[in-house]
Parts: sequence; C-alpha cells; structure tokens
Amino acid sequence: NYVRYTQKIWAHVREIATLALVAIVLGLVAGTLQIGTETLVNWKSGHCARNWFLNRSFCCAAVKDDTKGRLVVRDELECVEQGIWVAWQNPFGAFLLFMTLSLVFGLLSAILVRYVAPMAGGSGISEIKVWVSGFKYKDEFLGLKTLIIKSIALPLAISSGLSVGKEGPSVHYATCIGFVVTNLLSSRSMHFSEQTEYLIAASAGGVSVAFGSPIGGVLFALEEMCTNRAFNLSIMWKSYFIALAAVTTLQYMDPFRNGKIVLFEVTYDNQWLFSEIPVFVLLGVFGGLYGHFISNWNIHFVSFRRKYLSNSKIREVLILIIMTALVSYFNEFLKLDMTESMGVLFHECSVNGGESAWSHEICQLDADTHVAVFLKIFLSLCAATIIRSILIVFSYGACVPAGIFVPSMAVGATFGRAVSLFVERFITGANVITPGTYAFLGAAATLSGITNLTLTVVVIMVELTGAFSYVIPLMIVAAVTTVILSSLGSKAGIADKMILFNGFPLLEKPKHDMTWLREYTAADVMTTSVVTMNEIISTSALKALLETYPNFSGFPVVADGTRQKLRGYASRSRLMITLITNENDGPSVDILRDTKTLGTQDDESRLTEFRKTVNELPLTVKPATPFSQLFRVFEKLGSNVVLVEEEGSFLGLISTKDLMKFQRLKEREMNGQLFNFNEERDEKLWSFIRLIF
Amino acid sequence: NYVRYTQKIWAHVREIATLALVAIVLGLVAGTLQIGTETLVNWKSGHCARNWFLNRSFCCAAVKDDTKGRLVVRDELECVEQGIWVAWQNPFGAFLLFMTLSLVFGLLSAILVRYVAPMAGGSGISEIKVWVSGFKYKDEFLGLKTLIIKSIALPLAISSGLSVGKEGPSVHYATCIGFVVTNLLSSRSMHFSEQTEYLIAASAGGVSVAFGSPIGGVLFALEEMCTNRAFNLSIMWKSYFIALAAVTTLQYMDPFRNGKIVLFEVTYDNQWLFSEIPVFVLLGVFGGLYGHFISNWNIHFVSFRRKYLSNSKIREVLILIIMTALVSYFNEFLKLDMTESMGVLFHECSVNGGESAWSHEICQLDADTHVAVFLKIFLSLCAATIIRSILIVFSYGACVPAGIFVPSMAVGATFGRAVSLFVERFITGANVITPGTYAFLGAAATLSGITNLTLTVVVIMVELTGAFSYVIPLMIVAAVTTVILSSLGSKAGIADKMILFNGFPLLEKPKHDMTWLREYTAADVMTTSVVTMNEIISTSALKALLETYPNFSGFPVVADGTRQKLRGYASRSRLMITLITNENDGPSVDILRDTKTLGTQDDESRLTEFRKTVNELPLTVKPATPFSQLFRVFEKLGSNVVLVEEEGSFLGLISTKDLMKFQRLKEREMNGQLFNFNEERDEKLWSFIRLIF
Repeated sequence: NYVRYTQKIWAHVREIATLALVAIVLGLVAGTLQIGTETLVNWKSGHCARNWFLNRSFCCAAVKDDTKGRLVVRDELECVEQGIWVAWQNPFGAFLLFMTLSLVFGLLSAILVRYVAPMAGGSGISEIKVWVSGFKYKDEFLGLKTLIIKSIALPLAISSGLSVGKEGPSVHYATCIGFVVTNLLSSRSMHFSEQTEYLIAASAGGVSVAFGSPIGGVLFALEEMCTNRAFNLSIMWKSYFIALAAVTTLQYMDPFRNGKIVLFEVTYDNQWLFSEIPVFVLLGVFGGLYGHFISNWNIHFVSFRRKYLSNSKIREVLILIIMTALVSYFNEFLKLDMTESMGVLFHECSVNGGESAWSHEICQLDADTHVAVFLKIFLSLCAATIIRSILIVFSYGACVPAGIFVPSMAVGATFGRAVSLFVERFITGANVITPGTYAFLGAAATLSGITNLTLTVVVIMVELTGAFSYVIPLMIVAAVTTVILSSLGSKAGIADKMILFNGFPLLEKPKHDMTWLREYTAADVMTTSVVTMNEIISTSALKALLETYPNFSGFPVVADGTRQKLRGYASRSRLMITLITNENDGPSVDILRDTKTLGTQDDESRLTEFRKTVNELPLTVKPATPFSQLFRVFEKLGSNVVLVEEEGSFLGLISTKDLMKFQRLKEREMNGQLFNFNEERDEKLWSFIRLIF
Repeated sequence: NYVRYTQKIWAHVREIATLALVAIVLGLVAGTLQIGTETLVNWKSGHCARNWFLNRSFCCAAVKDDTKGRLVVRDELECVEQGIWVAWQNPFGAFLLFMTLSLVFGLLSAILVRYVAPMAGGSGISEIKVWVSGFKYKDEFLGLKTLIIKSIALPLAISSGLSVGKEGPSVHYATCIGFVVTNLLSSRSMHFSEQTEYLIAASAGGVSVAFGSPIGGVLFALEEMCTNRAFNLSIMWKSYFIALAAVTTLQYMDPFRNGKIVLFEVTYDNQWLFSEIPVFVLLGVFGGLYGHFISNWNIHFVSFRRKYLSNSKIREVLILIIMTALVSYFNEFLKLDMTESMGVLFHECSVNGGESAWSHEICQLDADTHVAVFLKIFLSLCAATIIRSILIVFSYGACVPAGIFVPSMAVGATFGRAVSLFVERFITGANVITPGTYAFLGAAATLSGITNLTLTVVVIMVELTGAFSYVIPLMIVAAVTTVILSSLGSKAGIADKMILFNGFPLLEKPKHDMTWLREYTAADVMTTSVVTMNEIISTSALKALLETYPNFSGFPVVADGTRQKLRGYASRSRLMITLITNENDGPSVDILRDTKTLGTQDDESRLTEFRKTVNELPLTVKPATPFSQLFRVFEKLGSNVVLVEEEGSFLGLISTKDLMKFQRLKEREMNGQLFNFNEERDEKLWSFIRLIF
C-alpha cells in the first residue's frame, strides 16, 4: 500500500513537472517571439535613438521613471514627440527601406522553411489535429528542428508584411515543445495516446499565448482539436494547467512593456442596444460568407500552387511580398501591422474617455464632416477589406509559417468599421452607437467564419479586448455565422477542409445522415487478403514474417494455420520489441505454443513474454454489423484495427484507413468530387501569372 | 432529393423553435423570479412610498426621468434619501417584522414542497445528472407541477433568509422547462437520448440565467453534466443557443432595472502583483478545505436528517429559519442578502473611483484606524465565515428548494475579505493591494471547492463581475483548490457525492487506477440466471413471457431453446409495442420463425415487424474480457446491456447496473464503506436536538 501511494505521488509529480516545463518553455518562446516580431516590424518605420536594437516599447519603457514601468498609449506618443523613438522622415527613403526590409525578412523566412525545415511551413493545425486523433504523422513534424526553424521564420514572415498571422504557427511550435519535452522527460513510460493528451494541452497553450487568452486556449483544445476524438476532463485539466502557466510566464516577461497580456484593451462604456441586433446579424452573415468563400478559394489556390508553382516557392513568396507591400503602403489600414490596425479600429472613440491622447481621424467623423473626408475613410476601409481578403487567399499556404486567424480578423474589423461609419452617418446620427464595437464584432464574425468555432471565438474575443459587456452581441454574431456556414453546406473550418483536401487520415463524421450507408456492413468494408500468423511459430519464422511484410502493422493470430480459430492479434511494434530483447537467447523455439511442451525455465519466461505481445481479446465485430455501428466502434473506442469474426473463425480485418477509404469512396459516388477544380480556368490563371514569374 | 431537403430544413426549424421556446420561457421565468425574490427580500427592510407592491429597484427606477431609465448605485441612495423608498425606522418593530416575514416565507415554501411537490425540494443537480447520463428518473421529477412549485417556493425560501442559493434550483426548473417543452413540441419523434441533449442544454441555460453568465452555463453543461457521458458539439451548440437566448430575454426584461445582467460589476483598476501569488494559493487552499469538509459534514447531516427528522421536516425548516435570523440579524455581513453582501465585499474601494457615493465602513480602514474598529470588522468577517459555513451544513438538503453555490461563495467572500484586512494592515500597508479582489477570489475558491469545477468557476466569476483582468489569479485559485481536493481524496463535487450517497445509478470512473480490478473479467460480472427467449415463439407464449417477468427489460434470443446459438436481443419495450399493434390480428402464429413456413401475406408482414424488434447484432463480449475493457465498452458506447458470448453460444448478460454493483462492491471491499457515520455521535446529537423540537 505504501509503495502504491509513493508511485501515485511520483506519477503526479512527474505529470505536473512535465506540464510546467512545457508551459514555461512555451511562455518564454512566445515572449521572445513577440519581442522579436515587434522589433523587426518597428525597424521598418523608425529606430530607437538610444540603442538601435530596441523596439519601440522597450525603447520608450526604459526611459520612463515611473516605478511600475508600465507603458500607456500616451507615453508612447510622448516618447515619439521627445525624439527618443525616431520615425523615418524622408518619404522616399522610408518607402525604400520599407520595401527592402520586407523583402529581406520574407526571403530569409522562405529560405529557412524551404531548405532547412519544410515541415515548418504553413499553419500546422490540420496535421496536429490528425495526429492527436490517432494517426501519427512524421516525428520530424513535431521535432526540435521544426520547432527552432518555425520560431525563427515566424517573426520574419510576419514582419515581411505578408497577410499571415501567428496563431496557427503558435499552435504548431507549442505542440512541438510538448512533443520534445514529453519525449525528453518520459520517453519510455508514455503511450502514444497518453502523449496526445499532452500535445492537445500544448496546443491549448499555443492559442493562449498567441491571443493572451488562457480560457480561449482551453476551449480551442475542446472545440477544434478534439472533434474527432473523445474529450475528457484529464485533457481539460492538462490544457488548463499549461494555458495558465504559459500565460503567467508570458505576463511575467511582459513583452509589450505595458503589464498586460491582452492585445488591445478597450473599454466600451455604452451598453449595446436591442435595436442594433440587425447589424449584428449582418456582421454574422458577412463572417459566414467570408469563411465559406475565402477558405474554398484558398484551397483552390493551394491546388493551383501544387500544380504550377511547386518549383518556384521562394520566387512566389517574393512576388507576394512585393505585391502586398506595394498595395499596402498606400492604404493606412493595410500599412499598419495587423494588430496595430485592429487596435485603431476597435477603439471606442469616446470623447470623454480618459485617454485623450487618442485622436485618429476616424474618430472625428460626424454629421458635419465634409462628405469627401467621409468617403475617403469609408472607401479606404472597404478597399482594405477587399484587398486583404484577396491577399489572404494567395498568402495562406505559401512557403512561410502562416496563420489565417489574425488576417481574417483584420478583414472583419475593416468591414465592421465601414458598416459603423455608414450606420452612424445615415441611420442613427452621432453618439448613439459605439463604432469600435462593430469592428470588434466584425473581427469575431470573420474569425468564427474561417475557423467554424463559436464558443472559442467568443471567449477569445472577450479575453483579447476585455470587452466583457459585449458577450451577448458576440454570441449572436458567432451563432449567425455558424448558421450561415451550415446552410451553405460548409460545416467545417479551414483546418478540417485542409485535412479533407490533403486526404489526411481522419474519421469525418458523415456530413449527411448515414442513411445512404445503411445497406453496407462490415463484410463490405473488410480486407480479406490478410496475412495471418500461426499460433505456433519459431522466432526465425516470425522474423521472416516481419521482414516479408514490412508495411503490415500487425497480424491476426490463428490456430492450426487455418482461419477457423482466431486466437488474437499481434501488433508489429510489440513483436519487434520482444524479438529484439530476445534475439541472442539460445536457439529458435516455438514461441507461442502451450507451456507444457517447453523444456527449460528460460524458455518458459520467454514464452510468457511473447504471449504478452498477443492481444488475446482484440476488438471483433460480426460480418453483418451495419456500417453505422462499425463507425461508432471506431469513433468511440478509438481503435485502429477491428477483426471480423463469426462464431470463432476469422474472416477479415478492418483498419481505420479501410473504413475511411470506404466512406470517402461512397461519399464521392454519392455526392461527386469533394473539390472540383476548373482545369481550364487554372490554365488561364497560370498563363497570366507566368508573365510575372 | 427534394423531399430529403425539405425534411432536413423542417428538422432544423423544429430544433431551433424548440430551443428558442425553451430559452424564452426560461428567461421569462428567471426574470419574474428575480423580481419576485427582490420584492420579498425588500419587504423585510422597508416599503415603497408610491406603491406598496414595488421592490426597491422598480420603486426607484420609475421616478427617474433619465430616458435610458438605468439605475446606478447613486440613484438608489438618492431614492432612499428622498423618501421614495422608506426603510423601517422603529428598531424593535423592524426586528419583529424581519422575523415574522422570514418565518412566513419559509413556512410557505416548506409547505408547498412537503405537501404539493416533494420533488421540488433541494437542489436537483444530482438527479438531473443521473438522468442525462442515461438513467431516467421519475417523469414527475421534471414535470409541470415540479416546475411551478419550485418556481414559487424558491423565491420564498431565499427571502426567508436561509443560507440557500438559487443556482441549483435554477438548473432544476430550467431542465423542467426543457422537459415540458420538448414533450409538448415533439413527443413522438424524440428518443430518450436525443431529449437528454435538450435537457443538458436547458441546464446550461439555468446556470446562465442564475449567474447572468452565458458562457459559464455552456461550460457547466460540459464540466458538470457531461462527466459521465459523451460530450459532443451538438450538445454544445444547443447549450450555446439556449444560454444566449435565455440571457438575452433576461436582459430584455431588465429585472434589476440597471440594464445589466452581471450581478455585481466591479472595475479593479490595479493589476495584480506576482508577489500576491502566495495569498492566491492560501485562498485556494481554503477553498479546497471548505469544499472537502463542508460537503462531507453536509452529507453526514443529510443522513442524520433521514434517520431522525424525516417526520418533522417543516418544524426543522422553521427552527432553521429562527436560528438563522437570530444569528444573522446582528452580523452585518450575514444580515444582508447574500448577493448584496458580496457586492459590498467585492467592491474595489478605490478612492478616485467614479462612484463616490460608495462609503462603506470597510473601505475606510487604514493604518491610522483605531485597532478596535479594525478588530470589530475583522472579527465580524471571521464570524460570518464560520457561522455561514455551519448554517450551510444544516440548511442544504432541508425541505425547501436550496442551492449551495451562492452561500458557498458568500463564505469565501467573507474569508477573503478578512485575509485582505490582515494583509493590508500587517504586511503591505494601505493602497498596495485591492482588498475587494481577495473577497472575489475567495468566493471563487469556495465555489470551486464545493462543486469541484475549475474552468466553469473561472468563467462564471469573470462573467459575474466583469473583473476580466483577474483571470490569471482566478485560474491559480481554482487550480490550487482542485489540487487540494484531489490530494484529500475528494475528487467529486457535492453533486457527485450526493449521487454516491443516495446510491443513484451512475457509472463512476474508478477513483483509483483500476489495477485492483485487473484480475476480474466479464465472466465475474455477468448474470447467468437470465431468461432467454426462443427464436420460435407464439404470440401467446411471448405475452406470457412478458407477464411472468415484468422486471426484465429484455430477453436474449436463442435458437433451439438451448444457449448454444445466440440469435440476438429483444428489448421489452419494443416487444410490447409490436404486441399491442398486432393483438387483434387473427390467431397465434410462430412469430420469429423463418418466412418459408408461414401461409398468408399478412402473417409475413407481421413476421417482418416482429423481426425488427429483435436486435440481431447486440453488443457482445467474450467471457475473458478484462474488467477495464468491459468498463470502456459501457462508458464509451453508452450501452445498457451487453451479452457475453463465446464462439456463438450465449453465456450471460451484463447490464450497466450489474457493472455498477460489481464495481461498488469491489470498491467497498477494497476501501471500506464510502461514508462512515458514527452512530453514537448521531445519537448524542439527536438527544441534544430533540430538546429544541
């Protein structure tokens, strides 16, 4: 009893230590990346007079003599006025520097990804989701090299001005940290399925540090990562712990030097009105349409890129950067860093507000403003919405680390702010609505649209801004977006669509009711050409078997060499381990035979060991089991292989991949191809694009 | 295809309509209850000069000429000063009225529960949890009568001054509304398991309206209601929808007349400090200890009540009210309504704050305050903590609707505020910490301790107060509480403990690892004395079979009358339905025989119908299946019955109840009784208590 107790305590301590290490490393990496990104971005617009290497926050924070050392917006403005932070003055020189630095950063990022760690490109959420649902991807995908390259290439990619966000990649490097740390601390004792719990928790930490949103991170783990597997309280607890500790570490590092983890704090003084609900619905509809079309177009472009651009990845990135920089430099909402731009758009514009230093033009529009000024701002918001959307379609999936969350939010914010200008001028008049809230809700709508998440988006948006009193409008917007998406037949977020498009193995819930699969049974799905293994087999024969069929992950064990008597299932990996540890022991013996026939005690113990490798009670179903029930067995019990058996005799084997293939085949027969790409149009696009290349 | 599409749309519309109706009714009931409770509570301290029937909020709100009509604290103070709301002046008369009204309200509540709807007593969360986990309780428990009585008795119970909260009962009446509405709108087409999704969603709505916390409600559904069943995105979506619509309805009703749904809004200007973390840990430890001991003591007292007080339920309530009123009247933190009291304790006490009308004595303590004044407040906080804890032990479970959430929070708030006074005077000095935050975090700790919820508590506390910047401290407190609870071996909240204590059927996750159950297999658990049904059986024999064994919920179907060939499983309910619809049709025929031997076409169609009642592919396991695997089958596949079969022959049957009984038996053998009550001590307590009775 004492031993059991000590073991229990020890297991607890190890768990907590593992989680804490993951979280602290994650917090440190996230903080460093944050500071690095800001430094690179700031270099494009100015420099610190005291020390060229500091970014603006650090430059301004260090000279403040306030003991708490916390920056507020006013301080930063003062800092610029006093010449501590020097913005570039010469307009032509500034433009040139802007372009040069964007290109250099982007080029570095693309080279790192292309030649050092190809796995570090893109977002990574889809692959992680597949992994934690039970299909291990390549080890390299979560390895140390990917972690390091992604952490370096991400700030470079963002500061190159491309329309890419850091959230997807944050999830990826967080999961890498989880993988590396768990392998380091407890490689021997941890099963694959146990490790996935840590990976999910790490992914929650990734969202938490990216958005400064610990609860949002936990919900992300639930709503995005666990849709294809069982969610349990142990995962929740691990996610909670990592999210908490990582965000606390980040807060301790204080990367923004303002003592806050929320990106853009706002304080909306006015309550929302019930008469605003139609506007919320409009924003929700926009979010749904945005999510549906942008993700489809992006997938089209990804397919196009594979076909035509796979050999010129770096050139593609460079062209994208040039186009982005050229278009963005002349639109004030596109030129700003996306988070900065959202800060401007979300702002409450209150006249009596405490921060009187705030005086952006967009807040000084009222009924008396000249129509030309109004139009200028209104149209530049609309232009920003459209251009950013187009840029996202082309940028997401390029050969740099790239997330789609923040760019999507930026699109929603400009759209929402445009709506607010319209409403304020033509419907309500001044000082009735809080225009910033529309930008904020618009951002929630597009984020919800592209990810197809509801609760997570609501919580992230609240945590991101502290705009607590707008929970109900947020929920309305996210609900409308979900309804729109679902009525467009687009029930999956972009991560799931990418999984489908790439043909990653993942059990999807059938989109339509499974009625059309009702007629099929396990007998239709099973593979009958299976290599079985005799119950009595010598070590050498076993070795030969394993060598002859290197792709088989296991073998059904039968008696008497016939399929009449199923004895169990032996998985390749366990057979291998046992073989290796027994390799040098004496001559070949029949290893799975009854104990009686064996001579020495040594043989007997070896037999026991081999016995253990055989699962004598594998999951079995009858051949007549209907498809829906079979599906439930795979889905709920999380098994990879099911044997088909009737009255003791072995008939066939069904792996998750068999099931999936069958399902996709039938679904395609029923509904046609998942993605129809117009070859002709692609050709035309290519003939146009090759002019630039 | 068109028909399928219409059906799909129609199903969608019906789902949305059902959810909306549940939510709107729930919002209206909650709003009415809120206003009613406030009215009753206010009557105890004063009356409205204009209209005796109005409560203070409505009395004061109606005379405000501000177009928005929203009350702030200052308005209410003005309202009292202007004599619109008249507080009782005569101290003796006030005391007498306070006692009389408390007794009358409590008596009414107890009589309603005792004689009209006994199911309306207590909290109800445990029973609902068991229900949604697959074990239907009595229909009456969620019926219209229970709904009505609980809605009337709840305001009465709260205004009687007892230490009971409205949150548990809110969940209960919300679930009643869900049950009544779903039965009304779609009685025929809804399966039990589908209805439970609506019930869970309704329970989420109950928490949402009780705390004004829509997201907290959804998380409650996940973290409390779904621990023993699979949680899926469909449940989340339903919960989200009901929570949103119910809270919006509530907000529209505006029961507090201040335009807010949060109960006690606070704005903590100062950030928390890293050096405060030890205090957060202390508060978390208190929460854990509180949760562990109070729930155990309460269960002891419930057992005591069953034994000695079951015949004097109403007298018990009256004595409780008198004792509560007598003790509370002279402690300012106990005398106030619990929510009002927490409002005082949570308050930020900021000197520069906007609401200068705030001037409670507790906010004017500083280093210069005379030690006597300090001690008076400090000790009255400590006394309130202890007395309230004791009152909770005796009150929760009495014969009135009673929740334990808010009383627990009140205990934590007084404790936390006492800690803040201590810290401010002896450690930090004035103006370093924000004292109100300790009360707020203390409330979170006790709430988390009594419910054993983490994420839900964090979200509810944030939504309840809007104290968004304290998410990290909140998460730390809740995490510490969970760790303390788990290291005390108390892994369940009070709802789960009540389920165990009452012996309700619910598959608990084994508390300790299942290693000690490793040696048991399906053969140990199964019942072999099962009545089987022959494949060939006449209608009359079938009828006889059903009548002879009225308690059997189904029969394994075998061939040839022996157990050699298992054919399937026929559930009682489906057999009954088929029998009834076929009763008057011709003579008895062999109903499950092969089609060939039957004469008429009519017989044939009848045969097909009976065939359908037999599940030819019931869930089966082998006798050697280990316990842990068996457990997983029940847990994950949510099945009620599993057949034990070896090579086609039937060996025995395992129902969920068999599994549960076996598990509890073995657990008791291993760890002793779950609850050990000291008979002797109970006797002594009784001999003391009977003096009062």
